[in-house]
Formats: sequence, structure tokens, C-alpha cells
Amino acid sequence: MQLPKTDYLIAPRPDAENLTRAVQGTDHTGQPVDISVVEERPLTIYLNRQEIVTAMTIGDYPEYLAVGFLRNQGMLADDEVITAVDYDEDLEVVVVRTKSQTTFEEKTQKKTRTSGCAVGTVFGDMMEGLDQVALPTTEVRTSWLYALAHRINTTPSLYLQAGAIHGTVLCQQDRPLVYMEDVGRHNAVDKIAGWMFQENVQAHDKILYTTGRLTSEMVIKCALMGIPVLASRSGFTAWGVEIARQVGLTCIGRMKGKRFVCLSGEDRLLRDMDPDQVPEEAKKSGRKGAKQA
Amino acid sequence: MQLPKTDYLIAPRPDAENLTRAVQGTDHTGQPVDISVVEERPLTIYLNRQEIVTAMTIGDYPEYLAVGFLRNQGMLADDEVITAVDYDEDLEVVVVRTKSQTTFEEKTQKKTRTSGCAVGTVFGDMMEGLDQVALPTTEVRTSWLYALAHRINTTPSLYLQAGAIHGTVLCQQDRPLVYMEDVGRHNAVDKIAGWMFQENVQAHDKILYTTGRLTSEMVIKCALMGIPVLASRSGFTAWGVEIARQVGLTCIGRMKGKRFVCLSGEDRLLRDMDPDQVPEEAKKSGRKGAKQA
Repeated sequence: MQLPKTDYLIAPRPDAENLTRAVQGTDHTGQPVDISVVEERPLTIYLNRQEIVTAMTIGDYPEYLAVGFLRNQGMLADDEVITAVDYDEDLEVVVVRTKSQTTFEEKTQKKTRTSGCAVGTVFGDMMEGLDQVALPTTEVRTSWLYALAHRINTTPSLYLQAGAIHGTVLCQQDRPLVYMEDVGRHNAVDKIAGWMFQENVQAHDKILYTTGRLTSEMVIKCALMGIPVLASRSGFTAWGVEIARQVGLTCIGRMKGKRFVCLSGEDRLLRDMDPDQVPEEAKKSGRKGAKQA
Repeated sequence: MQLPKTDYLIAPRPDAENLTRAVQGTDHTGQPVDISVVEERPLTIYLNRQEIVTAMTIGDYPEYLAVGFLRNQGMLADDEVITAVDYDEDLEVVVVRTKSQTTFEEKTQKKTRTSGCAVGTVFGDMMEGLDQVALPTTEVRTSWLYALAHRINTTPSLYLQAGAIHGTVLCQQDRPLVYMEDVGRHNAVDKIAGWMFQENVQAHDKILYTTGRLTSEMVIKCALMGIPVLASRSGFTAWGVEIARQVGLTCIGRMKGKRFVCLSGEDRLLRDMDPDQVPEEAKKSGRKGAKQA
């Protein structure tokens, strides 16, 4: 896919009617208040005739979510031909149809509960395929990272509108391309994986920016997607760092204003910008607040 | 269980050697830096001879985590007699043994991926049992909530030490009793549920404080545990609010300094404190930072 040179290909849609809802409550003074709250609805994913999982999701891009989920669970091979992705809004079901039979049956045998906010499960061996990962030695300029963080944090988003949501952004150099949000952090990543698969987008020159923590599963997903750089506002877990070092993924966390920490893959970093030239974040762009409706 | 009158029964252990690790990296200026990072390790939970799940956890209180997980998944009934909980540190396995056979087999049939940071799965029907929940009309004073938030946010914790971790605190009136932390938010709740079950602690007069978002699954867990009040620094999802209203759970979010929003169960709130008397949070007690090792 040839990428146009400007602006997001997919940006958050904070004003979309079906993604947030105004809810009445009271504030600390006892006064009634209307606040904007993100939606959360079930989406059941089928692979051909097999029901795989029901995901709790904000509900946008169900097709990308389904394809990306199946990809990231190793249920769709690189050369799999998807013949159709059918979404039924009323039934809250999405069916991914493939040309050949897939390996999902063996994958659903073993369940691993992963870190993160929810009861996490991945199918099959979490580490499967990691030893075949060879991430390219793409250069990453710190000026890109600073530009990305600033751009992403000031982009109108459901987070800024309603809070309680995670964001993941696929980036190329200093440009954010696809900014997905979801109540489930991994859903946001899966939607990006689905978009990349469906649009046939290369991974080797990309940067993945996430608002969530750099846990083992996030690192593994990024590596298996073939993206060599993972950046976050949040922190690390020890096992996440260990895996990142094993597979040679560049892992940058705690990105706030001029500050960041690189715990893996330092060799890709080109420090082309003086951190003292980076302005501190405006308070309202920080990811810990949401305006009232 | 008779509760002593002072201090935590279980508090975080930020200085415990096996829960964090010093990791070397570089900071934004290119200087080497040692930071403290939380551990994340697998724990496989068995119910009698049946392997149920492998959880990614920080690793403390494996017995409470296993019992609480099984309780919160509906795999251990109220009257279940646990004959032993055996933890093998080397094998990273915990086995919960019960007097009678349990219903786990039917529970493992249906998988639901929940909101939150990870790929979440609950077994069985997420809403099962909710229609039998009758939460008591316990009074909740806003002075307690303010005292709890202040106390919890200034308690030395793994979060303040290393970041990238969630906390959940079981409280009674203005007193935090049990403060559990984990890389998985639901693990922290499960550890509390396990402690309550093992120590035979009543739920009707408790308050559950969480650092995470008030999503549907968190609301359902709190209600099924029989705790009538759920409070958080973070925000809400629409379905979380809807379920809280259905079951009559008091749901308070966005608690920061004097501010909070109550979106469900306002009737329990006794507003006995002038919000203007509540000091703003000291910056270092905010849950968005972690010191360097």
C-alpha cells in the first residue's frame, strides 16, 4: 500500500455518536453532572464455523479487530487468504472466512492468563514463533519520538473526551498513521494488526506507540507483528524487558515531555535532538483526565 | 474474623526482593540509568487434578490468588470446603484441593474476552449469579472516601517504587485493610477475594478501592463478592455504569483530591465533609510516576 504523505490514515473519532454516551451522576459537591463515558459491548469472533471468543470492545472497526485478534493469536498464517469478513451489528458477531482450514483447534487447548487490567488469555504457547523473529535494525530518531508523543497526546481522542480507554498508534518516522482506541488495550493493538494485514502494510519501518504498560504480552505482540520499536508513556515489567532484549526489540517507556527511558535496543536510537529543547507537556494533554460532557 | 483496630492487615511490600528487579538502561540524555521494574511471572492454577489457567502475576500471595480466581470465576461455591492449597515455587504451580467435585468443567466451555489491558477471558456466563445479588444499603461517608484515597495514595507501594502495576484495596469505613498489587488488575482483586474467603471476612460493610477503570467486569466482580461500594481514581465504561445501577452498587470514579463523580448508588452517600476542606493531592502521591532505583 502506498501511504499518502500527510495526516492520519485513521484517527480517533471522539465525536462519533455510538462510541460514547452521556451519563448523569453527581459530582463531589453533590451537584448533578453529565459526563461522557465510553461504550463497552460484546463482539463474538468466529473463524469460519468455529466460535473463538467474545471480546468486550468499544465497537469500532470490528472487522480489523477480528482479523487482528486471529492474526495475533497465531490462528491466521501470513499466507492465509481471507475470503470474507462479515460483521452483523445486531447479532454483535463478526465472522472471518478463510480459503483453507486453519489451526485454531489446537490453539484453543492451552490458555494463559496474561498481565494487564483484565483476566488475560492467549491461546497456545505465548512464546511460539518468537525464536523466528528477526527484527530489522531500523534507525529511530529521538526527534521522531518527541514529535510523535506530542502529536498523539494533542490529537482529539476518545481518551481526552471520555477517559477510561487505551490508545495504540502505528507510526512511521515522525508521523502517526493509524490511531486506534479501545476499552481493551489489546483490542487496540489487534485493530492495528488487522488493518496492517488487510491493507498489506509493511512492519519493518514502523514504530508502535501505546498508552499502556510494556508487559510481556505487549512486547511479544509487537515483535510477532514484526515492528522493531515499541514506545509508551507507561512503565515496564521485568519479563517484558527480558523478552524485548532476547528478540532485539527497542523498548522505550515512561515517555513524558523530554523524559524517557530505553531499556532494550538502544542501538537503534539516534539521539538527534537536545532534550532541553523539548517543551514540557501541557497539563491538559496528559493522559489522566477527561472533560465533562 | 475479628479485625484489629489499627493499620493494614496486609500492606504492599515495595522493598521485597523478589517483587522488583533493578534494570539498566539509558535515560533521555543518553546517560545510563538503573530503574526498578516489577516482576511478572507465570503461575499455573489447578483445581484438584484439573489445570485451569496460567496467570501472569507479580508472584506474591499465590494461594490467595488461586482461591480468589476460582471464587470469582464461580468455580468454588460459598460452601465449598478447601482441604489444601499447595504452592510449589519451583514449578510455579498452585493446586487448590476441595472436599467435593466442583463445576469447573462446564465453566471452561464458554470464553469471554473482557475489557482491560489484556486479552481478558472469563469462563461461563459473565453475568451469571448477578440477579441473585442483593447488596446492603450500607452508608458511605465522603469523609471516609477522602481519608481512604489520601491514605492509599501515600502508602509506600510497588507502584510508587516501580510503577506499571495496579492496586486494589479492601477497606472498612475510613480504614484500608488489605492492599494488594499486581501486574494484572484482576489478580489484585482475586487476591483480595481469596483472602476474604480463606479468612472468612464479611463483605457487606466493606469498600473496594481500585486504581483501575470501572469496566463491566470490575463492577460484576465487586457485586458478586458482595461489596456494596466500588471507588476508583480512574473512569467508567457505559456498561459498567449500567450494571452497577442494575445491581445497586455504589460506583465512584475519578477520585482525585477533592473531586469525584458518583454515577450509581448515590443513595448510600452521606456527604459529611466539605470538599473545600480536602487538600489537593501532593504531586508525588499521584499514581503516574515511579522513582528511579
